[in-house]
Amino acid sequence: MHDTPSSFTTWVAQQRQELENFLEQRMPPVNQIPHGLHQAMRYATIGGGKRLRALLTLATAEMVQADHQTALLVASSLELIHAYSLIHDDLPSMDNDSLRRGKPTCHVQFGEATAVLAGDALQSLAFQWLSEPTSGMPSTSALTQVRLLAIASGSRGMAGGQAIDLASVGMPLSLPELEAMHLKKTGALIRAAILMGTHCGGASLSDNEQQSLTHFANRLGLLYQIVDDILDNTSDSATLGKTPGKDDAECKATYVTLLGLSEARSKAQEVLNEALDTLSRLSHDSQHLQALTQQIYARHH
Amino acid sequence: MHDTPSSFTTWVAQQRQELENFLEQRMPPVNQIPHGLHQAMRYATIGGGKRLRALLTLATAEMVQADHQTALLVASSLELIHAYSLIHDDLPSMDNDSLRRGKPTCHVQFGEATAVLAGDALQSLAFQWLSEPTSGMPSTSALTQVRLLAIASGSRGMAGGQAIDLASVGMPLSLPELEAMHLKKTGALIRAAILMGTHCGGASLSDNEQQSLTHFANRLGLLYQIVDDILDNTSDSATLGKTPGKDDAECKATYVTLLGLSEARSKAQEVLNEALDTLSRLSHDSQHLQALTQQIYARHH
Repeated sequence: MHDTPSSFTTWVAQQRQELENFLEQRMPPVNQIPHGLHQAMRYATIGGGKRLRALLTLATAEMVQADHQTALLVASSLELIHAYSLIHDDLPSMDNDSLRRGKPTCHVQFGEATAVLAGDALQSLAFQWLSEPTSGMPSTSALTQVRLLAIASGSRGMAGGQAIDLASVGMPLSLPELEAMHLKKTGALIRAAILMGTHCGGASLSDNEQQSLTHFANRLGLLYQIVDDILDNTSDSATLGKTPGKDDAECKATYVTLLGLSEARSKAQEVLNEALDTLSRLSHDSQHLQALTQQIYARHH
Repeated sequence: MHDTPSSFTTWVAQQRQELENFLEQRMPPVNQIPHGLHQAMRYATIGGGKRLRALLTLATAEMVQADHQTALLVASSLELIHAYSLIHDDLPSMDNDSLRRGKPTCHVQFGEATAVLAGDALQSLAFQWLSEPTSGMPSTSALTQVRLLAIASGSRGMAGGQAIDLASVGMPLSLPELEAMHLKKTGALIRAAILMGTHCGGASLSDNEQQSLTHFANRLGLLYQIVDDILDNTSDSATLGKTPGKDDAECKATYVTLLGLSEARSKAQEVLNEALDTLSRLSHDSQHLQALTQQIYARHH
């Protein structure tokens, strides 16, 4: 029972629409005080982005036959965390980016102070959503979701990866160091997206399957970053939706600067195969996870 | 069964020491990667501060006979949120403060990027701690704690209050607007500290008593801010541990600029009486909450 490419495209479009609707309806409205803060939070979250993390949660939740509304809430919480991290990463004191998803970055649009606060409040909102009594999850599952998301976001996860990345400007990392950094910076939230999908209810996975999914998730995070580095090296800003070539200009280590473009492409292919191979060993129907993995890989073509 | 002033002092000193030990032992160690980030997180959290929010949680938890170790964990989570908010509030794009608790602020000591990330990671860590399976709370209580803290921290709470405060520079607020702002900026976390104390386990409160405690908590947040404004107007930086007179220099509305010093002092007295009166109507022994309230009031003498 495998989707044709076109039915996968339909699935993705539908999930994205449902996510937009969910965020639109559930985020604090702009007519509520403080107006400017709520506007900035919505600006950075609604109406854009590939929703990769949310789609991974939804695809995984579907695989274990979880309730769709619960999965949407969990997936949207992940998008709040992702949106907050982009706002803060783009700040002048961090990556200093002025373009994101083809729009001015949050601090360019609303000022730096509002951008810092919008990121802070988005993080709080993610945990608020996961802890709502109406989430449809038993308290133990909801608490597990909070823990998975908190660990993935914190100093041993995403924020920690960004700290290592910033510290490495002008101080090139070795390949193992680069992989360790990406495992935190991008990988932690991608791993959490998949694990959180398995805790939305529905069928439970064996320890073995949980382990395979974690391994898959780690590979996927790595694949995403290699492809991102390739894109940063080869695209213009219209294609990329953000300022390209910045990594190179700042002497940051990337897969392309470390391996060269052609080797980086081979590495992406190798990581793709390993990820798909891991998925194929699950007893569940992982068609949408497979397709999402292929899609991440195909971005750099 | 009321403490003498000296036994209250002993109680405070002991709680503070236990909080320091808890934070020292439980925060990510500096020898763990990323070293600089963990150092900044500890710098901003350990070894200073009045621990007012934590003490309020501990005093309330004690009042309902909750487990002390659980109360320590919950109180420490609140301190993480408070520490994160101070780091971000002090940033150049926000209040631009260089002195905090008598030390250079986090961004002065570690750079702005690390300060932003340290604040972000402290927020994540607070929710991680509350969701730990070893917290000693049933899942439903732990989830309630997550929700209370998330709402108090977010755009309708602390972060929202800071946004209103920033937007008001040069645009003086009326007294009702000022009170509404403080109810969010300082009040939300103080209110959460008290409510979270009641959810650490132990005896449960009647709806009526919960309501009285919430009212008390609101008055306490207000009292704290009036006293803070008076201190900002009358102290030097050695006494205050931060840069004084900034509010005045920036034409921010404060209780002192709106009411004058003598009226602000009367207002503090009035709010103190109302807070103590509310506490006295509880059927539980609130001696340490009373003493903490008196202590907040007495700061400006």
